[in-house]
Amino acid sequence: MGITLEQAEAAIAAAKKKSEEVQVKMNIAVVDAGANLVAFARMDNAWLGSVDIAIRKARTARFFDMPTGDLGQASQPGGSLYNIEHSNGGLITFPGGIPIKNTNGEIIGAIGVSGSTVENDHTVAQAGLEAVK
Amino acid sequence: MGITLEQAEAAIAAAKKKSEEVQVKMNIAVVDAGANLVAFARMDNAWLGSVDIAIRKARTARFFDMPTGDLGQASQPGGSLYNIEHSNGGLITFPGGIPIKNTNGEIIGAIGVSGSTVENDHTVAQAGLEAVK
Amino acid sequence: MGITLEQAEAAIAAAKKKSEEVQVKMNIAVVDAGANLVAFARMDNAWLGSVDIAIRKARTARFFDMPTGDLGQASQPGGSLYNIEHSNGGLITFPGGIPIKNTNGEIIGAIGVSGSTVENDHTVAQAGLEAVK
Amino acid sequence: MGITLEQAEAAIAAAKKKSEEVQVKMNIAVVDAGANLVAFARMDNAWLGSVDIAIRKARTARFFDMPTGDLGQASQPGGSLYNIEHSNGGLITFPGGIPIKNTNGEIIGAIGVSGSTVENDHTVAQAGLEAVK
Repeated sequence: MGITLEQAEAAIAAAKKKSEEVQVKMNIAVVDAGANLVAFARMDNAWLGSVDIAIRKARTARFFDMPTGDLGQASQPGGSLYNIEHSNGGLITFPGGIPIKNTNGEIIGAIGVSGSTVENDHTVAQAGLEAVK
Repeated sequence: MGITLEQAEAAIAAAKKKSEEVQVKMNIAVVDAGANLVAFARMDNAWLGSVDIAIRKARTARFFDMPTGDLGQASQPGGSLYNIEHSNGGLITFPGGIPIKNTNGEIIGAIGVSGSTVENDHTVAQAGLEAVK
Repeated sequence: MGITLEQAEAAIAAAKKKSEEVQVKMNIAVVDAGANLVAFARMDNAWLGSVDIAIRKARTARFFDMPTGDLGQASQPGGSLYNIEHSNGGLITFPGGIPIKNTNGEIIGAIGVSGSTVENDHTVAQAGLEAVK
Repeated sequence: MGITLEQAEAAIAAAKKKSEEVQVKMNIAVVDAGANLVAFARMDNAWLGSVDIAIRKARTARFFDMPTGDLGQASQPGGSLYNIEHSNGGLITFPGGIPIKNTNGEIIGAIGVSGSTVENDHTVAQAGLEAVK
């Protein structure tokens, strides 16, 4: 099923470290290749509403094997995937979710981060996935 | 309730064949005249998030007896059916869902395809319904 | 992600064949190792309410890596897992769902069947999984 | 809102250690005093269906400030809280969820564990909460 708990926890640790550098408080979720939750952490005083968003971002990134922000560009009014967010019990299509690949380039899961600007969310997610060996 | 399993499976087989020609990996769903699922297939490594979307496209196409993309043109901001996607537990209104008619022109079900661009989704759905005799 | 579409379709074909032998009309669902739908078929005039049940049985069997009926024995009043059905958006814990293993004994997915007595449902599910090589 | 991420991660680490001793594979969730998720871990090859159950056990334990198994004794047919599981989007009332108190005896959150027998689930949850200082 792809990513191990050890890898997922390494991703979360790296994401927390980056969050502290950027001075933000994040919710961080990691799902496996089947889009099922493997690990999660909410930093102290991070937004409560971001628990669900972080998990949905991770799931969305694995559902379509692309960063969530890419999907969001096509789901705008007039876009080819307008209102795709209504599927799968609710997608999140702004940045902060990114697929995680192994060294062979195969997708083994995804990370989702929520708690700050979408730019910061994406930056922290990127730091997280880079810790996965 | 219209389409038979044999017809639905013929539609899915034709849709899979077209998908291979176009070199895409699709989720393909067929519903009957009651908008209830008859048959479904997810090609290996097709998007996981498209399971739900393919089924919703097929249902949406039968719910309103028109291609999903037609509905999506009226559901845009300012459009007459703005945000109709909120109904029925979640509609999908971009292309890829098409009603299926019998030789008398009566609607007997619908097909929904998801996994690539909406143009490819629609093309594969069209190939599927043309296999229904 | 475990089971391929080809394997899933072989399981469904075998389950349909067994259903015809037993003279029942079934809904048959196959999920992969991530509990995501791979293939589905509803035989003509099979119960509409069994679409959802067949899919939930397959998911439940993979969720807990055991036949659904085993889980149901522990979820009775006074049982150790009483009312576990309230989890995961709704489980089905009577017979008809069985995990599918590969030749190494690893679980690669599950099959769920609904449309007749639970004994017939289980028999047809068993016939389906035996077709997976 | 009570428990810190550091405390929650200590609880999960202790629960994992106990799981390895007992040779079981667990899903472990920790919620805060507001019943919102703080941390989660799924051990490799633990049941997928237990992701949701572990989280619900933790929430249920905090919702009613008692071990989930205590609630389950009153939710049986004829019991005073018969079918309370229907509330709150779905409760889990068999053992494996326990409130977490601080050194002053105030409830600061709860832990939920799922993946084995309810006795093992409870044992691992107990080991987790004892690690919270």
